[in-house]
Amino acid sequence: MLEELTSEYIREVWQILPPHLKPTTFQSTFLLNKALDADVTVASETLQVTGSFKFRAAYNLLSTVPQDEVITWSSGNFGQAAAYACMLLNKSCTVVMPTTSSKAKQAAIQAYGAQIEFVDTSVKSRSERVEEVKAERPNAFYAPPYDHYRVVAGNSTLGKEIFEKLHTEDRRLDCVICPIGGGGLISGIIVARDLLAPDVEIVGAEPLLGNDAAQSLREGRLVSLPAEPQTIADGTRTLSLGNINWEIISKGVRRIIEVPEEDISGGLRTLYACANLKVEPTGALSVGAMLYQPDTFRGKRVCCVVSGGNVDPEVYAGMLQGTGF
Amino acid sequence: MLEELTSEYIREVWQILPPHLKPTTFQSTFLLNKALDADVTVASETLQVTGSFKFRAAYNLLSTVPQDEVITWSSGNFGQAAAYACMLLNKSCTVVMPTTSSKAKQAAIQAYGAQIEFVDTSVKSRSERVEEVKAERPNAFYAPPYDHYRVVAGNSTLGKEIFEKLHTEDRRLDCVICPIGGGGLISGIIVARDLLAPDVEIVGAEPLLGNDAAQSLREGRLVSLPAEPQTIADGTRTLSLGNINWEIISKGVRRIIEVPEEDISGGLRTLYACANLKVEPTGALSVGAMLYQPDTFRGKRVCCVVSGGNVDPEVYAGMLQGTGF
Repeated sequence: MLEELTSEYIREVWQILPPHLKPTTFQSTFLLNKALDADVTVASETLQVTGSFKFRAAYNLLSTVPQDEVITWSSGNFGQAAAYACMLLNKSCTVVMPTTSSKAKQAAIQAYGAQIEFVDTSVKSRSERVEEVKAERPNAFYAPPYDHYRVVAGNSTLGKEIFEKLHTEDRRLDCVICPIGGGGLISGIIVARDLLAPDVEIVGAEPLLGNDAAQSLREGRLVSLPAEPQTIADGTRTLSLGNINWEIISKGVRRIIEVPEEDISGGLRTLYACANLKVEPTGALSVGAMLYQPDTFRGKRVCCVVSGGNVDPEVYAGMLQGTGF
Repeated sequence: MLEELTSEYIREVWQILPPHLKPTTFQSTFLLNKALDADVTVASETLQVTGSFKFRAAYNLLSTVPQDEVITWSSGNFGQAAAYACMLLNKSCTVVMPTTSSKAKQAAIQAYGAQIEFVDTSVKSRSERVEEVKAERPNAFYAPPYDHYRVVAGNSTLGKEIFEKLHTEDRRLDCVICPIGGGGLISGIIVARDLLAPDVEIVGAEPLLGNDAAQSLREGRLVSLPAEPQTIADGTRTLSLGNINWEIISKGVRRIIEVPEEDISGGLRTLYACANLKVEPTGALSVGAMLYQPDTFRGKRVCCVVSGGNVDPEVYAGMLQGTGF
């Protein structure tokens, strides 16, 4: 599907999609720069429609499909985004979710009028459960959360905002750090970078506990984990990158930082204390990468992408108090 | 000082001040409207410079004074704002703070290079301690946190943003709900309302535990509390409104909602869960007022002003878990 990602198509999405989105929230503070010893701007998707970048992808994908019924799977954010997009587009929506998913994400999906089908991933894989649900609903459109060119194109609108705002004639950006789960977001950022700012490095940030993308980059082939990783960053509990995402990432990224759990929590606390941002653990990966490898970024002009903000209050409270990882 | 608040002066501030500020953060979500059963837009100052609206006031005041030394008193947010404004303006800054002040606010004030003078308000009043510090620094400018026309004018820039964005030809606003401590913020909003949107009601939101403004409105005279109120909303632990603020509020506000502590916490949790906003207890007063008096606002188009986001992680975690009030 890569050949469908032409610059004409991408630029068309950049025209059509933004009226349905909120612009990302750029935040930079004296305290954050001091804490990270760099010139940092956060591009936060916590205030995006449905609280994460996923709405960019879901709306771009689902606004073009003719079916009235949609099935997807998600640890929560793509589910919320698809559920709300379906509500706006008058479609019905079913989301396959792990039983371990965030309660906040489950509640939001139900508030948006979608149905949840649970899967206990210690017993059955997500994909098996998805196949069952598909068989029950043969007329439904199956919406992949990251492995689709329209998903990547939707996410590229965030990259456009970042490069147009931060990478200007008189102020150049050194790098963008971006969380990696299935790879949908970072591949969108890469696509935008290739069009708008080819000299800016994009660095991946992945939990050490679920480092399939880093392994893939080292081995030069798409590596799958044997089981869902038990990282606190629930948005990255994927077995592997998507195929299209891997193709884009393998060409577009040279470094993926494998962030230990304590630096994910540290990133979350830093964004709380120094930028007044409530972020979910996955959203803290970029700042966590800076805490883990401060020498790599010292003095640089860095954009940290915060992917979303949906997190259960108990989990968040525990992480704020340093007991949550 | 009211005669100095001419529309010419206000409009001059609206020209000069905004380049030094961040625009407020407007947030509206399906989940928040559902939770509050109204058409709600939050105007959040949590991402403002120094994390609260106070920077609008502090910078407008301090950028015009000739002295190199500044003294102020604050439970934290005006102190942070004054400290950072002084750093930008190359002035030295001393902040008189209660010993019970938020640790996060203390740390930020020190990070901005200011000095803190503590006062144990169970032993000595804030104003006594301020007089002592003034006597030690006779050449310093004393910066009042709310009772000054330049403070009100600075805060009016938030009102301008709200009315220009939300009160348009085709979409009218029914009311703005605004927290009240010393009254600096709400008087700025009233001044802007009188110029831009005279038909929009402004409703005050004050902790029931520190309801001096509501008492003042009932009695038609400026009422002072006998001691600092022990509300969780630390930004409102003032004994009374300022004189200039009372003069503006007594003419510009008809209703002040006295919000119980549990609805302040409820407001904080609602903004966490439905809008992904990390707010401080004082910042949650407007939404707390809606939770406390749902019938008053049902179906209305409401702007909830969130004054700031600076809160200790332990306090915030406790309030998220429902144990913090």
